[in-house]
Amino acid sequence: MHVNMDGQGPLHAQLTRALKAAMFAGRLGEGGRLPATRQLARELGLSRNTVLAAYEQLRAEGFVRGQVGSGSFVTPPVKPEALPSPAQVEHPPQSAFARRGRRFHDHATMPGRATPGMRYAFSYGVPYTNPALTTAWARELGRAAAYTPPNYPMTQGLPALREAVCDYLARRRGVRAAPADVLIVAGTQQAMALTARVLLDVGESAVLEEPHYTAMREVLQIHGAQVEAVEVDAHGLRLDRLPAAPPKLVCVTPSHQFPSGVVMSLERRLELLAYASRHDCWIFEDDYDGEFRYDAQPLAALRSLDRDGRVVYVGTFSKALFPSLRLGYLVMPPGLQRDYLNAKWQDDFGSSAIEQAALANFMADGGFERHLRRAGRALLERRGALLAALSRELGDALHVADSRAGMHLVAWLRRADPEQGNALILAAREKGLDLYSIAPYYQRPPPQAGLLMGFASMSVAEIEQAVQVFATCMRERGLA
Amino acid sequence: MHVNMDGQGPLHAQLTRALKAAMFAGRLGEGGRLPATRQLARELGLSRNTVLAAYEQLRAEGFVRGQVGSGSFVTPPVKPEALPSPAQVEHPPQSAFARRGRRFHDHATMPGRATPGMRYAFSYGVPYTNPALTTAWARELGRAAAYTPPNYPMTQGLPALREAVCDYLARRRGVRAAPADVLIVAGTQQAMALTARVLLDVGESAVLEEPHYTAMREVLQIHGAQVEAVEVDAHGLRLDRLPAAPPKLVCVTPSHQFPSGVVMSLERRLELLAYASRHDCWIFEDDYDGEFRYDAQPLAALRSLDRDGRVVYVGTFSKALFPSLRLGYLVMPPGLQRDYLNAKWQDDFGSSAIEQAALANFMADGGFERHLRRAGRALLERRGALLAALSRELGDALHVADSRAGMHLVAWLRRADPEQGNALILAAREKGLDLYSIAPYYQRPPPQAGLLMGFASMSVAEIEQAVQVFATCMRERGLA
Repeated sequence: MHVNMDGQGPLHAQLTRALKAAMFAGRLGEGGRLPATRQLARELGLSRNTVLAAYEQLRAEGFVRGQVGSGSFVTPPVKPEALPSPAQVEHPPQSAFARRGRRFHDHATMPGRATPGMRYAFSYGVPYTNPALTTAWARELGRAAAYTPPNYPMTQGLPALREAVCDYLARRRGVRAAPADVLIVAGTQQAMALTARVLLDVGESAVLEEPHYTAMREVLQIHGAQVEAVEVDAHGLRLDRLPAAPPKLVCVTPSHQFPSGVVMSLERRLELLAYASRHDCWIFEDDYDGEFRYDAQPLAALRSLDRDGRVVYVGTFSKALFPSLRLGYLVMPPGLQRDYLNAKWQDDFGSSAIEQAALANFMADGGFERHLRRAGRALLERRGALLAALSRELGDALHVADSRAGMHLVAWLRRADPEQGNALILAAREKGLDLYSIAPYYQRPPPQAGLLMGFASMSVAEIEQAVQVFATCMRERGLA
Repeated sequence: MHVNMDGQGPLHAQLTRALKAAMFAGRLGEGGRLPATRQLARELGLSRNTVLAAYEQLRAEGFVRGQVGSGSFVTPPVKPEALPSPAQVEHPPQSAFARRGRRFHDHATMPGRATPGMRYAFSYGVPYTNPALTTAWARELGRAAAYTPPNYPMTQGLPALREAVCDYLARRRGVRAAPADVLIVAGTQQAMALTARVLLDVGESAVLEEPHYTAMREVLQIHGAQVEAVEVDAHGLRLDRLPAAPPKLVCVTPSHQFPSGVVMSLERRLELLAYASRHDCWIFEDDYDGEFRYDAQPLAALRSLDRDGRVVYVGTFSKALFPSLRLGYLVMPPGLQRDYLNAKWQDDFGSSAIEQAALANFMADGGFERHLRRAGRALLERRGALLAALSRELGDALHVADSRAGMHLVAWLRRADPEQGNALILAAREKGLDLYSIAPYYQRPPPQAGLLMGFASMSVAEIEQAVQVFATCMRERGLA
């Protein structure tokens, strides 16, 4: 009898696999008798115990029946065919959720995605990190692993982390929240998904800013929301342009509009809150990079002005630390805490406890604030270098919509329409420079070409070199 | 002028907060003029720069207007009322999802939840851990933190971890999967939630085993599925009891039925696969603790017999390592990969990269297998101690449905109805022993009292002492 042993793992396991393969291949027919254990052991040069263990395993799995001594028979239902391999056909979507996922989540044009092999990239979403942070974080993780209990974490998040977040919010964002109001989430993405589930039924309407964070639109659309993007002016979302039928949810980035950089004025904030109370709608306040400001403290959040419990306030550690961490927080409206906790529970029970404990300690120890100060200084310098280089090299060929906050700015190409802008991006890639159009961040793309320019992940020298390449491309294409 | 500074953080920030509080409290009326900076600085004993910084901040946030030198005025829209604090009313659920969450997720009776302050607990769900694992894991995390890129992780999971999982599945579970088939998820809970979204529309039907994992039922119900629990016999799910209208999804635990311990026979497995192909339905195979068997190798998975691509195979590291980790994996049916990836993307973009990298390295290095062997030996010993102590102390007062796998067994109280069983559980708590009824794991609870007894997290000595307490309670209540 021929059996193919694959040399991986214990001999009895190899033999079990080989015998199964022989059955599936039809070399051990239906109802067929397996060789006696002594005989097979001799044939294969194995100990009898090895063969006995393999037969026992086949018996336990139901592949053979019979008792030791009276012979082992292949169980009838196993048809002598080839080893199965699942069919490779793509199925139609099996749920409305899956159908909307295929329709609305556009892998191909996920904005901000870096092109591989580029020498320079003005990418947005990779924050400032440095070896000190890496070292500190490795140390915190190692420490937290030593004392974090192994059991299921609290769904709402570790109390120590929620306390540290409240302290941070009070000091740096003017948000007064109690640990009981805070839900630890797997980044802003989970905060959005939970909010869509808790607040929206299929067909209900949600308003986004125009331009806006594309993933927010896709998450809402995947949940079946009717999404409308409403223009932003110099004071923030234009409430006078809201649809006649009030939406159920309004998603805003008041402290630093994404991606335009506008700060929502106090008047507009109070108007929006009054609108939400009047029309029984909800506000998603995405404070994604309020840590980094270059003129004054972070502005007071909508949540801190909210008397009616209408604001879902969301912050993330993706910008303040790094996005591979997947941790953020959500300040729940008092009237919906139970629903948010249920939604988080059904999603994943709760976020990873060791990372939460490490972060709580990093915040309580002051390491987090030290990193923020260091990052803030570096970002200030990099932003200054980018602004100076753009002004020096390209002057009035660009209109830079500076924002005094965050990790990116928006540069409009005065002499380029969108098509010329796209041609420029392709030409820059030829020279090893990755540029990012602002168009995907619009529901109705603007008539002018614009770029979203992240400056957090390049050094000052790299920024200056990258701007040189950028300027060369602009000149070659007659845009500067 | 009276301002209350709270002593927290920089002086200018304290002053900003105090001035805002004064405005909200009506002490600085609408259109009112703020004191000149020099004057306020003198009054409060602050430097003029501190006051200037606070005024600048209030201006940036829109609370005051006017220029330095010409006076600063409180901006009209700020009404002189008390500092806002969101209303504490509970809202009605805002979506059908939230409504079902409130209805079906029963915080009060979450089974297996440990009672605080107990000396002994036969709790299920806390696995075997030891200082060697803690040390190894701390080291792996520290290492991985040093080389894991900070940017957003791949939605599908780190390639190195998916490769390690495939290798492990092939060697230990008989599942052949390619890294492209594997999705890294935040534990079984996320695997269930993703599956509910990808496969089920509201009102579609799903079958669970009876008894079953309660969280699975709740997740399906929260997603609006019509859930039916179908009896399990000595060979697994009774296919002859499936509802007349075929369900869209069948959820099973073939390698170790939870919580009964039954192993699904090969015949039943092949029948179930044929049923799924015939009726165009899907199988969720939850292989939650297949790592630990006490007689033979883990049984071959349904997925390894699946020719038609109907099986969603799910494994978790909550049992093999520990549940605070929140990592698991899902082998996607080939025809639904895009939908699972979309669903994971919208949920959280992807799981935490450092923990994935640490786990990939732990698996590749052999540390994971070493831990599994050590845990397997410890569990074998603890299980043996529990079985021996129960038999010695309680003899035929119990029927132990032994299962030769996993980290728990089921003990039926021969002389107790459910009410007597609940009274016993309360009496045991008085003596510092936490016992867990099996009733919550049933849709239609059985007429007899039964206990789910986890043995992974107590030492042999603790198990023996806990059984003594248990036996005393049984005798005192006339049940033994």
